[in-house]
Amino acid sequence: MNKIKGNIVVGQSGGPTAVINASVAGVYRAAKDMGVKKVYGMVHGIQGFLEKNLIALEDYLETGMGIELLKRTPSSFLGTCRYKLPAVEGNEAVYEQIFAVMEEFEIEAFFYIGGNDSMDTVKMLSDYAAAHGKLQRFVGIPKTVDNDLPVTDHCPGYGSAAKYIATSLKEVIRDVQSTGLTKPTVLLVEIMGRHAGWLAAAAALAKGQDCDGADAVYLPERVFDIDKFVEFVKSVGEKKNTVVIALSEGIRLPDGRFVCELGGGADSVDVFGHKQLSGCALTLAGIVAERTGYKTRAIELSTLQRAASHLASLTDIEEAMEAGYAGVMAAAGGETGVMVVMKRIQEQPYLCTMKTFDIHHIANGEKTVPLEWITEDGRGLTEEFLQYVRPLIKGELLPVYVDGLPAHLVRKK
Amino acid sequence: MNKIKGNIVVGQSGGPTAVINASVAGVYRAAKDMGVKKVYGMVHGIQGFLEKNLIALEDYLETGMGIELLKRTPSSFLGTCRYKLPAVEGNEAVYEQIFAVMEEFEIEAFFYIGGNDSMDTVKMLSDYAAAHGKLQRFVGIPKTVDNDLPVTDHCPGYGSAAKYIATSLKEVIRDVQSTGLTKPTVLLVEIMGRHAGWLAAAAALAKGQDCDGADAVYLPERVFDIDKFVEFVKSVGEKKNTVVIALSEGIRLPDGRFVCELGGGADSVDVFGHKQLSGCALTLAGIVAERTGYKTRAIELSTLQRAASHLASLTDIEEAMEAGYAGVMAAAGGETGVMVVMKRIQEQPYLCTMKTFDIHHIANGEKTVPLEWITEDGRGLTEEFLQYVRPLIKGELLPVYVDGLPAHLVRKK
Repeated sequence: MNKIKGNIVVGQSGGPTAVINASVAGVYRAAKDMGVKKVYGMVHGIQGFLEKNLIALEDYLETGMGIELLKRTPSSFLGTCRYKLPAVEGNEAVYEQIFAVMEEFEIEAFFYIGGNDSMDTVKMLSDYAAAHGKLQRFVGIPKTVDNDLPVTDHCPGYGSAAKYIATSLKEVIRDVQSTGLTKPTVLLVEIMGRHAGWLAAAAALAKGQDCDGADAVYLPERVFDIDKFVEFVKSVGEKKNTVVIALSEGIRLPDGRFVCELGGGADSVDVFGHKQLSGCALTLAGIVAERTGYKTRAIELSTLQRAASHLASLTDIEEAMEAGYAGVMAAAGGETGVMVVMKRIQEQPYLCTMKTFDIHHIANGEKTVPLEWITEDGRGLTEEFLQYVRPLIKGELLPVYVDGLPAHLVRKK
Repeated sequence: MNKIKGNIVVGQSGGPTAVINASVAGVYRAAKDMGVKKVYGMVHGIQGFLEKNLIALEDYLETGMGIELLKRTPSSFLGTCRYKLPAVEGNEAVYEQIFAVMEEFEIEAFFYIGGNDSMDTVKMLSDYAAAHGKLQRFVGIPKTVDNDLPVTDHCPGYGSAAKYIATSLKEVIRDVQSTGLTKPTVLLVEIMGRHAGWLAAAAALAKGQDCDGADAVYLPERVFDIDKFVEFVKSVGEKKNTVVIALSEGIRLPDGRFVCELGGGADSVDVFGHKQLSGCALTLAGIVAERTGYKTRAIELSTLQRAASHLASLTDIEEAMEAGYAGVMAAAGGETGVMVVMKRIQEQPYLCTMKTFDIHHIANGEKTVPLEWITEDGRGLTEEFLQYVRPLIKGELLPVYVDGLPAHLVRKK
């Protein structure tokens, strides 16, 4: 095996997840198993890297609870960024600066944990290295609650968010159902996912022996028809006194506008003249209240759903670690310009392995929920989807509680 | 000891909590320890009771996981109501109907788990019984996430909501802080509590060695000044790039209006002409964005904070059970027209016992956060408050996970 003799660097990019740090832990463990000298972390991704804002992970992970606490820490331990590398032409200085930093810190391999946009960074850098005879290796490690990266079966981060969404939905459904005897109440729960409905689809998990689940789940993969929606809510409200609707934030009208753009109306701006900040659940709550007279309540799961490491899926944590580990193994084996992908090789019992795939087929790509996994009426998910998602939310890893609250690992200031 | 020879009934009323069912469990266990024949549950509180909508708790708690699952089930297992008994005069039929049901089911004692309004039901019924020579006993068991019942040191339900609020705040603070390098971002987190700020105050718990906490916590106990608030946010944003604000939904302007009534402006109605549904966080997010140019994000914890039994405080669950247990003991000892109250008898280690108190001094009363527990600048809580709240969030009781999701006990249909 082609080993890594020098140092490595790992960074986090894009929106964080509950388990993105488990991938850092996986990178670290693999590197140490392999005898890598130093594992640097870039503070705030490639942006921090350009400014040589690096920390030595050894300082954090070889003391105290180390990796165990890191695995239980939500959001990017290293800090993240949304910086996209410019085209090489005309920006050679940026690229040369990156490689100069790599040489200065004797970095042989660069690991970037992120989603679609972040994989573009891996692609640009590995392409540049290839074109300029640089020997450093660049490997992407998938991460996104949105679960929208192509090729990979699923993405680390998704399972934990799905677990949080389904759990929270079960809890708020019980809450709204307990009131019982009044006029119909419509609960609208808004879930992340601008372009892909994977997260909203996880709402379908709530249904079971002890929960009626949502009456409908709307994804951005299907056009949203407000009139039909109101008609449906009305009809459910005639049969029972709570109506529960799960909505992807990304649902769109036939004309292509996001429902949330409607706000209080098509030209909705608030008194200050700027666009309403509210989401589709609040928008539809207003419309439903107006047209049906039902009571409505909108809940937006917001960043809670991607930060709730106290309810992370153990499967997800373990896979996030494995993805990091596999990334280092790939680089050690000489690979570059690839992303780690997950391949499901067995359903019962669930079994998933890590492979790698050419980054050019992944960067900037997007995988949405297959239309055949959405029920014909556009309001639910099929059993095939449930079979896909169920293993991903399984297992728990107890937080480290200190005085009643989960403890987290933080960078020194 | 004056024992209960016949049956008893227990009901739940008002907004549910994560541990309101633990009080049912406590009532049940005490009754069984005492040899009570049958423990009835009223479905949807006094409203269901009037319609003889009763279930035998034995059918649920003597099989399967029984009490252990009930303790881990959020929201009212029995269903709740917001029905307030009418004045006796002119409504004698309602009262006679209640006592007729009690006699038909041989019910000697009536336990009502609820908040301020629900305690009014206990008062009315015990007063009626006293005035009409009825021997049945009526005991209130405190429950409210709002923590606003008088006399009692705190209320079951509050500790778990506080734990959820502080945990979630820690997680979303990490989320917003991770983005780091852009222009200031203001995170506004809206917390329940229309008149009392106890829940919002719990946001102060987030601050610790591993978390900066909120930059300010605003309670309804102090008048809210929008100009001063914006000035404060601006000044924090000049020093660091994330500003975190915790807000009680009940904060009010100097003229007495709720901040959330402002909506997008003083006369804010949406395109349909009805009042905006959005809360104060969204309202203030718009104002801050307009006046400072900072990026803003509003998160409303909504009913999640009172339903999250997956993150309940063990102390809270145990105290909720004890309160139920103590209620039955009090009735068995001949007491009626009382509510169970919690008396803190020691700080280190924390020790709390159950007493009873005359319901007339509790019903319809309200206890707000003492002004001396709010810092002079009106933006924080004192160490005295933290000492008060810390013990209430301690300990965890693991949910029963089935296929990755917490299982709940439900009534048969």
